[in-house]
Amino acid sequence: MLLSLLAVAPMLAQPAQPAPIISPEVHADRTVTFRFRDPNAKEVLLSREGAQKSAMQKDEQGVWSITTDALDPDIYRYTFLADGVASIDPNNSLTTPNMLNTQSAFHVPGPASLVWEINDVPRGEVHRHFYRSSIVGDDRDFFVYTPPGYDPAAKKQYPVLYLFHGYSDFANAWTALGYANVILDNLIARGQAKPMIVVMPLGYGAPDFVTRNATGLRDPILRQRNYEKFRDALFTEVMPQVEKTYRVAKDRNSRAIAGLSMGGAESLYVGLNALDRFAWIASFSAGGASEDFAATFPSLDSSANAKLRLLWIACGIGDGQIASNRKFKDWLTSKDVKFTPVETPGGHTWLVWRRNLAELAPLLF
Amino acid sequence: MLLSLLAVAPMLAQPAQPAPIISPEVHADRTVTFRFRDPNAKEVLLSREGAQKSAMQKDEQGVWSITTDALDPDIYRYTFLADGVASIDPNNSLTTPNMLNTQSAFHVPGPASLVWEINDVPRGEVHRHFYRSSIVGDDRDFFVYTPPGYDPAAKKQYPVLYLFHGYSDFANAWTALGYANVILDNLIARGQAKPMIVVMPLGYGAPDFVTRNATGLRDPILRQRNYEKFRDALFTEVMPQVEKTYRVAKDRNSRAIAGLSMGGAESLYVGLNALDRFAWIASFSAGGASEDFAATFPSLDSSANAKLRLLWIACGIGDGQIASNRKFKDWLTSKDVKFTPVETPGGHTWLVWRRNLAELAPLLF
Repeated sequence: MLLSLLAVAPMLAQPAQPAPIISPEVHADRTVTFRFRDPNAKEVLLSREGAQKSAMQKDEQGVWSITTDALDPDIYRYTFLADGVASIDPNNSLTTPNMLNTQSAFHVPGPASLVWEINDVPRGEVHRHFYRSSIVGDDRDFFVYTPPGYDPAAKKQYPVLYLFHGYSDFANAWTALGYANVILDNLIARGQAKPMIVVMPLGYGAPDFVTRNATGLRDPILRQRNYEKFRDALFTEVMPQVEKTYRVAKDRNSRAIAGLSMGGAESLYVGLNALDRFAWIASFSAGGASEDFAATFPSLDSSANAKLRLLWIACGIGDGQIASNRKFKDWLTSKDVKFTPVETPGGHTWLVWRRNLAELAPLLF
Repeated sequence: MLLSLLAVAPMLAQPAQPAPIISPEVHADRTVTFRFRDPNAKEVLLSREGAQKSAMQKDEQGVWSITTDALDPDIYRYTFLADGVASIDPNNSLTTPNMLNTQSAFHVPGPASLVWEINDVPRGEVHRHFYRSSIVGDDRDFFVYTPPGYDPAAKKQYPVLYLFHGYSDFANAWTALGYANVILDNLIARGQAKPMIVVMPLGYGAPDFVTRNATGLRDPILRQRNYEKFRDALFTEVMPQVEKTYRVAKDRNSRAIAGLSMGGAESLYVGLNALDRFAWIASFSAGGASEDFAATFPSLDSSANAKLRLLWIACGIGDGQIASNRKFKDWLTSKDVKFTPVETPGGHTWLVWRRNLAELAPLLF
């Protein structure tokens, strides 16, 4: 009940600053200017997804800035490095959650044809579920996308895609960074993908797998427990809740499993060892698992071909995982297991994984 | 499909650092140690919710640290101020979203009796809806809490609380910072609150109301448009979607409206001018509206007493809004409008608003 800003200012809890800073500023020509006030820093670098680190220039007010070349329309993550100290952009409210590395992000708008652009189409919903996992021993969440027009009281049953995030992501990664709900909304509106339910669980089977110093992936026993308990939680906790709550078809032909990076390794490990449950299996930039494929997939052989509607293995050619993905595909070939190999431009980034999802979803069901 | 961490490291996009830092570290005695590596800073301050800024001490590795006194169990926000530059804690993945000021947060665990603690009780769900607002002219979202056991196919109808965030918050504030879903889960499990639906819309009627330099609140015309268009979007866009999608009772005795700060001003403005729609009205630390109460509530008089099941006006005595809240209560008294005045310890913070919700919810319906 106040007229003045002054009395409301305490809730902002921001230090008094000499002048407002606009950052990032996305220009009409798709160049982007970044600004960061830090008068005492000796050097400030812009660290941007898909680009080399670039030195920013300081003005007389102590504001560092840099303007990029024209960028392809997309969503990019970035941080500032001030004398080696990483920082999000304090003038940008768009941040990307991650257990090890919170970053800022910006959007270079593009044509409506880009699947991650929000268009004036019917929108689906994103549901967050919470439960105590007795398999893993923690309180956790999972997210469920329902397509536009989904009616929980109707008889129609939907196919379901189980979609996994990467190492150090939270369960919200596929919606917060991957725009999975926006991508599905657009593809469904265009008639390019079937209306489907997408289930996005928390991808860890060992609660201590992601630690501050990221030692989890170095420990093969912990890593194996992570994958096995993840599978057990998926089968005995997440899937039963989903099948009780949502109108999903329960036959293997109506179930797909996919994931990125660690989640790609999980989708292969879980899916290829459970062909009785899943007919559609995909991995994006799979990484972080053992290369002892015979031990990981002990019963996989050409008899899988009759069960698999799709085995889709994608990786960017600029991705550090490309060599191990090629090794895995060679092994599949040696076992006479058929698959669709997909090599794309790009590295180990969400720029690739959003496109992977947009390419995969139309192939499903 | 890799054994080594090295090949996975690029996705972390973190600069190489000499040694892992643990921050914050919440000790068993409820003291908390914060650490921040910044070898070149001349001064680093800890800015913590509910406390004075405190100077941190630098060690020979350039790591600044400070340990607090024992803190009451709660959830607190904080930032570091390095030579005046505000930063989240790069070693803490718990951040709090805000349009003007992203912060870090930490949790000092307390007994299960605290309503924001996650307990082993049935959990409700949080649903995120997306739509294009023709009233405001933007793409936006709203969140809906459904209580444990909610069955969209059942006949039972639930009462509904419309719950509004504050200035510069996103629509997710009441779940991300307010723990509204956890609080309701606990109160419902204890039998202290009736199972209810909680609807948390985006609280802006003018898309440019929150700007980088926070000029919105200074402009009375923009501010008024913000409140009016917010009400129009609530009545003609959000409420119809909610009443179509969820099993909510549609009579005024089953509808409550409440909010914090700007959202408190909105709940009073919308609710007291629409007693045909709402029988339960509450504000927490209401602020940011005109003090011309006669103009804001032109038809409010003692005839409201027969319609109001509750008018609950709460504010912390350490809050900058306390004076205007008292003025408003004096005005209500002068109009013979009955209300429940609630003055609590605390300032303009979520520490107060979580408790406000926990105190209000048992009074409703």
